[in-house]
Amino acid sequence: MPSIFTKIIHGEIPCYKIYEDEHTFAFLARDQIALGHTLIVPKVEVDYFVDVEDPYYSAVFKVAQPIARAIHKATGCKRVGAMIAGFEVPHFHYHLVPIDSIFDLSFSHARERGPEEMKAIQEKIVAELARMK
Amino acid sequence: MPSIFTKIIHGEIPCYKIYEDEHTFAFLARDQIALGHTLIVPKVEVDYFVDVEDPYYSAVFKVAQPIARAIHKATGCKRVGAMIAGFEVPHFHYHLVPIDSIFDLSFSHARERGPEEMKAIQEKIVAELARMK
Repeated sequence: MPSIFTKIIHGEIPCYKIYEDEHTFAFLARDQIALGHTLIVPKVEVDYFVDVEDPYYSAVFKVAQPIARAIHKATGCKRVGAMIAGFEVPHFHYHLVPIDSIFDLSFSHARERGPEEMKAIQEKIVAELARMK
Repeated sequence: MPSIFTKIIHGEIPCYKIYEDEHTFAFLARDQIALGHTLIVPKVEVDYFVDVEDPYYSAVFKVAQPIARAIHKATGCKRVGAMIAGFEVPHFHYHLVPIDSIFDLSFSHARERGPEEMKAIQEKIVAELARMK
């Protein structure tokens, strides 16, 4: 059965999309540690990051650089942090989270946000990404 | 002035070394979120991960795969998680942390350990890495 992320990539489940290319897909996390929290997933369904092969594996981290710059500008955070956990969805996903201290980087802060907030931050991040081209 | 990590790479500050190659250096974090918590740093001193260039940038994530496998085997954790924060040392470092739940992945758990514990886990991880070759 396809993972929830594969369904999101295929458009079967809606998301607040941030970016897509041949090997990767990025969208706002459902539960936001901080507003702008984005997941980057490879377009291949592999559970554990140690098992993801290139070009998919390296593509996730390479595209994390421009996406993190865009999140940084869109949110005005001090840094964009990153996390890999891997307990909830068996499809490798890389979390990019705007943070102001190392203690902000924790799943204990994650919560759902309203659609207006999600739409607004999606548009800001996507606009920043477009500006970099 | 060189960062504390550059001094560790050059052997001017002691560490519990895990791995080294042309582009990367890995060692046990001073403050361990969980025993086996390892930092991978590129052999180039760049503060923010969005600014690190290849081959250094991709090399960190590529070598994270065998190192994470070795941490996994050495610790018996459920998963190896990963984090980038970047507030304390202005030299990009990638945290690999053995975890049993997503809430284990937090700097609030970090604490120093005794040299016997550090030495013992270093030897186990290095032995697992050697076994993979």
